[in-house]
Amino acid sequence: MTQQGYVAYLSGKWIPRSELKVDVSDRGFRVGDTVFDVTRTFNGKSFMLKEHVDRLYRSMKYARIDVGMSAQEMTDVTEDALKRNQHMLKQAGDFFIWHAITRGPGRWAHSAGPATVIIEVGTNPWAWFADFYKPGAHAVIARTRSYSPQMVDPKIKHHSRMNFNLAELEAGDIDPKGWPVLTDTSGNLTEGVGYNLFLVSNGVIRTPGDSDILQGVSRMAVFKVAKQLGLTVSEEALQPYDLYTADEAFFSSTPFSVLPVTKVDKRAIGDGKPGPITQQLLAAWSEQVGVDIVDQAERFVKQHRTDATFGR
Amino acid sequence: MTQQGYVAYLSGKWIPRSELKVDVSDRGFRVGDTVFDVTRTFNGKSFMLKEHVDRLYRSMKYARIDVGMSAQEMTDVTEDALKRNQHMLKQAGDFFIWHAITRGPGRWAHSAGPATVIIEVGTNPWAWFADFYKPGAHAVIARTRSYSPQMVDPKIKHHSRMNFNLAELEAGDIDPKGWPVLTDTSGNLTEGVGYNLFLVSNGVIRTPGDSDILQGVSRMAVFKVAKQLGLTVSEEALQPYDLYTADEAFFSSTPFSVLPVTKVDKRAIGDGKPGPITQQLLAAWSEQVGVDIVDQAERFVKQHRTDATFGR
Amino acid sequence: MTQQGYVAYLSGKWIPRSELKVDVSDRGFRVGDTVFDVTRTFNGKSFMLKEHVDRLYRSMKYARIDVGMSAQEMTDVTEDALKRNQHMLKQAGDFFIWHAITRGPGRWAHSAGPATVIIEVGTNPWAWFADFYKPGAHAVIARTRSYSPQMVDPKIKHHSRMNFNLAELEAGDIDPKGWPVLTDTSGNLTEGVGYNLFLVSNGVIRTPGDSDILQGVSRMAVFKVAKQLGLTVSEEALQPYDLYTADEAFFSSTPFSVLPVTKVDKRAIGDGKPGPITQQLLAAWSEQVGVDIVDQAERFVKQHRTDATFGR
Amino acid sequence: MTQQGYVAYLSGKWIPRSELKVDVSDRGFRVGDTVFDVTRTFNGKSFMLKEHVDRLYRSMKYARIDVGMSAQEMTDVTEDALKRNQHMLKQAGDFFIWHAITRGPGRWAHSAGPATVIIEVGTNPWAWFADFYKPGAHAVIARTRSYSPQMVDPKIKHHSRMNFNLAELEAGDIDPKGWPVLTDTSGNLTEGVGYNLFLVSNGVIRTPGDSDILQGVSRMAVFKVAKQLGLTVSEEALQPYDLYTADEAFFSSTPFSVLPVTKVDKRAIGDGKPGPITQQLLAAWSEQVGVDIVDQAERFVKQHRTDATFGR
Amino acid sequence: MTQQGYVAYLSGKWIPRSELKVDVSDRGFRVGDTVFDVTRTFNGKSFMLKEHVDRLYRSMKYARIDVGMSAQEMTDVTEDALKRNQHMLKQAGDFFIWHAITRGPGRWAHSAGPATVIIEVGTNPWAWFADFYKPGAHAVIARTRSYSPQMVDPKIKHHSRMNFNLAELEAGDIDPKGWPVLTDTSGNLTEGVGYNLFLVSNGVIRTPGDSDILQGVSRMAVFKVAKQLGLTVSEEALQPYDLYTADEAFFSSTPFSVLPVTKVDKRAIGDGKPGPITQQLLAAWSEQVGVDIVDQAERFVKQHRTDATFGR
Amino acid sequence: MTQQGYVAYLSGKWIPRSELKVDVSDRGFRVGDTVFDVTRTFNGKSFMLKEHVDRLYRSMKYARIDVGMSAQEMTDVTEDALKRNQHMLKQAGDFFIWHAITRGPGRWAHSAGPATVIIEVGTNPWAWFADFYKPGAHAVIARTRSYSPQMVDPKIKHHSRMNFNLAELEAGDIDPKGWPVLTDTSGNLTEGVGYNLFLVSNGVIRTPGDSDILQGVSRMAVFKVAKQLGLTVSEEALQPYDLYTADEAFFSSTPFSVLPVTKVDKRAIGDGKPGPITQQLLAAWSEQVGVDIVDQAERFVKQHRTDATFGR
Repeated sequence: MTQQGYVAYLSGKWIPRSELKVDVSDRGFRVGDTVFDVTRTFNGKSFMLKEHVDRLYRSMKYARIDVGMSAQEMTDVTEDALKRNQHMLKQAGDFFIWHAITRGPGRWAHSAGPATVIIEVGTNPWAWFADFYKPGAHAVIARTRSYSPQMVDPKIKHHSRMNFNLAELEAGDIDPKGWPVLTDTSGNLTEGVGYNLFLVSNGVIRTPGDSDILQGVSRMAVFKVAKQLGLTVSEEALQPYDLYTADEAFFSSTPFSVLPVTKVDKRAIGDGKPGPITQQLLAAWSEQVGVDIVDQAERFVKQHRTDATFGR
Repeated sequence: MTQQGYVAYLSGKWIPRSELKVDVSDRGFRVGDTVFDVTRTFNGKSFMLKEHVDRLYRSMKYARIDVGMSAQEMTDVTEDALKRNQHMLKQAGDFFIWHAITRGPGRWAHSAGPATVIIEVGTNPWAWFADFYKPGAHAVIARTRSYSPQMVDPKIKHHSRMNFNLAELEAGDIDPKGWPVLTDTSGNLTEGVGYNLFLVSNGVIRTPGDSDILQGVSRMAVFKVAKQLGLTVSEEALQPYDLYTADEAFFSSTPFSVLPVTKVDKRAIGDGKPGPITQQLLAAWSEQVGVDIVDQAERFVKQHRTDATFGR
Repeated sequence: MTQQGYVAYLSGKWIPRSELKVDVSDRGFRVGDTVFDVTRTFNGKSFMLKEHVDRLYRSMKYARIDVGMSAQEMTDVTEDALKRNQHMLKQAGDFFIWHAITRGPGRWAHSAGPATVIIEVGTNPWAWFADFYKPGAHAVIARTRSYSPQMVDPKIKHHSRMNFNLAELEAGDIDPKGWPVLTDTSGNLTEGVGYNLFLVSNGVIRTPGDSDILQGVSRMAVFKVAKQLGLTVSEEALQPYDLYTADEAFFSSTPFSVLPVTKVDKRAIGDGKPGPITQQLLAAWSEQVGVDIVDQAERFVKQHRTDATFGR
Repeated sequence: MTQQGYVAYLSGKWIPRSELKVDVSDRGFRVGDTVFDVTRTFNGKSFMLKEHVDRLYRSMKYARIDVGMSAQEMTDVTEDALKRNQHMLKQAGDFFIWHAITRGPGRWAHSAGPATVIIEVGTNPWAWFADFYKPGAHAVIARTRSYSPQMVDPKIKHHSRMNFNLAELEAGDIDPKGWPVLTDTSGNLTEGVGYNLFLVSNGVIRTPGDSDILQGVSRMAVFKVAKQLGLTVSEEALQPYDLYTADEAFFSSTPFSVLPVTKVDKRAIGDGKPGPITQQLLAAWSEQVGVDIVDQAERFVKQHRTDATFGR
Repeated sequence: MTQQGYVAYLSGKWIPRSELKVDVSDRGFRVGDTVFDVTRTFNGKSFMLKEHVDRLYRSMKYARIDVGMSAQEMTDVTEDALKRNQHMLKQAGDFFIWHAITRGPGRWAHSAGPATVIIEVGTNPWAWFADFYKPGAHAVIARTRSYSPQMVDPKIKHHSRMNFNLAELEAGDIDPKGWPVLTDTSGNLTEGVGYNLFLVSNGVIRTPGDSDILQGVSRMAVFKVAKQLGLTVSEEALQPYDLYTADEAFFSSTPFSVLPVTKVDKRAIGDGKPGPITQQLLAAWSEQVGVDIVDQAERFVKQHRTDATFGR
Repeated sequence: MTQQGYVAYLSGKWIPRSELKVDVSDRGFRVGDTVFDVTRTFNGKSFMLKEHVDRLYRSMKYARIDVGMSAQEMTDVTEDALKRNQHMLKQAGDFFIWHAITRGPGRWAHSAGPATVIIEVGTNPWAWFADFYKPGAHAVIARTRSYSPQMVDPKIKHHSRMNFNLAELEAGDIDPKGWPVLTDTSGNLTEGVGYNLFLVSNGVIRTPGDSDILQGVSRMAVFKVAKQLGLTVSEEALQPYDLYTADEAFFSSTPFSVLPVTKVDKRAIGDGKPGPITQQLLAAWSEQVGVDIVDQAERFVKQHRTDATFGR
């Protein structure tokens, strides 16, 4: 293993990222039997790692995947992974860390295993979002629905995301740069494909309750930052009407923190520009982590734009 | 590539099966963005390959995955794959052929690609089912639900199956050898995790309509064989009541054709033994393919029991 | 036990009907844990008893109530009950026979028992319906819904009928003589409170499919009689629209066979009179059982009108 | 009536408990047309009787059952019943009081009556729950669903509980000592079969809102006790995920006040032991009523274990 | 245009009210493609006009109707309309102002137009409600459901109200003076046909949350008045049970502010008389607007009873 | 009334079409309280007028609108209307006839009236569809849903169509010439906004069953023509998958009979050209009515393209 590339963790071994592959008979590939989580760094330091690891372990408890190591061990290995990739930080700008745990091989879930444990460290995926801080992202409310907790609870972070894939395609049909937002089968807004949704009306930040969505760590961070700024956040059932008639809107997600949303289904939200409360949140968050979030993204995207990676 | 093992096809190349892996950033692993199909052979010849390839292409049309080759080309490569693995037939008994097409790399579905194309040939998975022909399998009606067509249509064969995984776990809670049967959100019986469900009452073969299930090729074969035997098959909405009070029941699937089901939720179906119509179907099918289906499975499972593989 | 009254069967004993009571701690009273069936006689002979007993045993299989006797034994005891009450026939006109099986005492269903077995013989409940053959009954579509098979399958005949009770009250709100018709949670017509619904349009007899309703024995009899008369019966999803715009409508139930329905929600069905196909069915049925069904009811109701009993 | 047994109230008369039976034609038996409530005593004094009687009268208002006596009269008769059974207190430990009001006889609900009024006093059912205070009860999430308010509102306490019976059987399939927990048709947790559900996570007590459940009097008592202890209680939509990942859980019900739950679907909740907040609630409640709730149950269950009664 | 009648605004022109007609090919008539709002005056001055105009513009944003004038222009024209009709005030008592904006002519919504803009001023419709202040209105819970936000969001005020029409007919079936209350498809109470629903229990004012209802301006006014009076208002999911067992109930709507409801489905609410909190709200509201709301309505209804108009 | 223009019928009077307006207080405008039907002529003769009038009367029976004239009288007036407009036939090519019946004025539906009766005769709306016969129309599956029969039965033809309006807008978002297709709340395909949907796969014509859609007269005509051609038509639950993977597709509606559909959601259906069975149906229909349907439309659209009218 040289200094030239990223180092990854695969079920107890450290390997070059380029060798990070799974056999196609692994249930993680074969039946989407994987839970995962994504953390990022600010200035190379992991951000809210504890919350991400805790959520990962809740996902595993729900899916009954036995990872064979404690949350503390997972945290330690993660910090080790960061250290082992420290030589890439300058080039990356900042890292994302992807934990993925599959149930391993086996025909039946109850007798499958052992789990495959993956920790990948890589460049925070600037190319995905950096260009949208200024003009705002365009949301599209997809026809495809979120899974109901009767099928698989949206509160676990897993890889069986065909509905997300379909929603992405539908968003592209309406707006080539469209970011999908899903609804549940009752028509309530839920979340995007790896990001939570917020809107602002009459000065109140509103977001769907956390029953039928991923309980985003960045979503929690928004709550915290908003509280510090004296802003009210309300969790409530929201429908497309609320988004169409909002004053402003934004997404939250680990890689980008907060991303302004200025259009939905081709209609301008508010005056069609990133809103003042959204900006305020971004500024306060930047200050707390000691990184100008927008500026960093815009700087690093230039060298990474062609370096497409998936990470979210 | 030697004669010692299986040969697989990966996006245009022939490689040893042991090298058949996908990068973890492939959408097939990362977001369950894979459609697939499974064919088996009888006496080494593919069975209903056309139907399987057609369904695979329908899955791709729905999911908008561009595989970059025509159905005829896919069929030709598949037959080639069989030829290249002919040396394994004697040991395998018969083959399964697994086609899996992922959308490839990329953050957004609409700009992802190129597709990853996998054709795997392996031993028909005898260990999964061979022991159940005589005593019958035990069904368990899972609490977890089938996806609705509003999320992802169950008529496409895809890898985003976390709900199947959960259903398997629930089946194991009730019966260590339980085979899960799912219902839709209205409580109607749908299908198993890779097999279709049939029941028999008053001499009529009954099975859920094909709107909310995989349109099983073996299911179609049951229709055909039943017709030849002068048996009536009725597609209709069925509920757990119908399975509890049935005279007999069975599953259909590519690897095992027809498998008797003799219990559901710990209750005997009929007299608790494989039913006469089920047996009749197995016998007629065996005759048509020139293979004693049960006998073959029981013979080959002995040498493959420890050779666990996933294939279905 | 004298000739003065009815004789009933209670868990192995023959007792006067007046002593037919259950302890309030019996689950049959305490949690509605009873399945039942109702048969009637024509000229004192049981009608379709086999079908009723079979359905009773299906109800028990579903509810996992162990009655401790075979269907044949149940049939024999039933015929015995008829014999023991033969002295009441002349006064009664014809009998209804009510089988009710409770799970017996116990806090948990899985360890409760032994079952309480009741066979009651009594006067067919003429007062319930006799006055409606000529003018037709008035249907009211209730706001209260049928249970879904996810709660308790409507195909089992059980005593947990609070929703039926509410529907009866609602029917009375709209029409003091209203007979409720329920819908499922999608708004499809299901059944009444102890009777099935049929309508006729363009010469075709239409009735809800048997997934979400009691699979009425009289409903099956209607199918049979209709077939003999060369009439088409179609099982299909029906909505209130279909009943409002029907040419004729009728109910079927064991005590009255077929009962014309001439109004629904205060609106006339067709020309507001019992329809010709309804009449044809009643006539053919009467002929088959050797009893003028309408005439018999109208004769016997006179002496039983004040003799209110529940039986259905 | 001697001192040897319990005295019961039946529609205006005082009778020995052993004679407390209902005719099988009473709608209470025939169509589950009964509303009821259950109160218990501490040190022989009724606990929150007013709240129980009020809820009973709300149940009657909803079901339109005319009991023919005022809430005050009902309260007076209840206190009288306690006095008349005072001689049994020492043996019983404490009493439960069961009010059950049926609509009485009659084919149609709107013309049925007069109501049958039952007040039963008996031993608090220690055998049901006493053994679970220390190790904790095992919850099982049933496949069978709660009734929706569209069928019969779960806020009324009634006897039409076939779905509860089925849920008990399913719980037993998974865990012989399983206590069922139901969900609504959207998959949200609702309640058990006579007990409410609470869970604790991050120090917050969480419980389903009271729209689709029985508005438990003990549930209200939990709210009150928690408030006195400075604990936060949150009413919110909860899913199985929340129970699987909770730190602790407990049931509330009149007979046992608060009962720790330590497993769900075979998985440990938290560390698999009764949680500290649960214990705190039990201790505070014991102090308020002047009875060591756990100790009393464990003492009295010894003599009552074989004395199975239904009461809840 | 003389002083004899009302003056109306139609797409830029002032015309006599009697000429206020639309061509039948206008989408407003043809496909219910109209959004609207209704404001009233107190002492001839518009009340909460800003809130009504804002809601009208939210309705248009949702429905993508381009009215071609700003909210300020709309407000100005509205005030002008009031001035132009000032000569009618004495006779009218007070005015209602009806804004209706249709999409105009055209086969497809996306290419239709220009919008038809209607502002009608007329007599506040006293005859609709004045007689109910004293005895209270009679509510009837209709079988017909509110539209779901998946079809058209109930938060927009539009003219496609066939379901309201059906609900009115159903209310009349049960009570000739019945005011319908609708539920959503889950059975939760939503709203009436142009009025919101409130109930009071244990001193708390409770009303359905504003996701699936019109966000009534008068509903907001109730919130405000209640707050000033120190009363608690709770927005929550409510079911028929809650209305049946409430202590008092009332409707809110622009024409009548607050209207007591004393019966529901023929059952008395509380003691069957307008409740004290309802009266308190009416009194406080009257004081704030300087009009005795009840007295005014009762005075003016005498001369307008035969002068039926639709306005709400 | 001169020969220069169309003559219309309005509640008993014959007036110039240009004067065909309704007062804005008519419930037809105010609350979408209108039922209607549309017939067309071939060679100036009404086509299937009886079926259209019958359906209109079923709509009125459902909505309880009393039109005050019999179906025969309606038919007679309609034929009279055709005669009175005969002078326009040559210019029009062929006519559409629009019957619209509103409930008339009044605040409450049960006391409203008298009905407003409109019969409009005009040019068949060639501009709507003529250009699509050759290339095929582009379908778009809208996110907005069909009303459920619980709100207003889709089998009645009414004017409360805000959901259709929204669906049209959504179709335009994806394809400027998109024709919306709606689904029900379970995700099943229902119908377009004034046209029914058919698809063809494996030589079988498939279309949604008629429970949740308008029972199109042209749909019935397709059944008849198909039968004459020896083609199989299957009514069944269909999902978007079925449309995406169909061999061909078409719409049916009164103005255009049958219209090929060659794209859905930007994806080609089959080979992207009008299919052979669709063509066969058009040819056979043309022959039966003695009009080359496609040729006529293409000829007349030239002079009417700018003469946009709504009619469908």
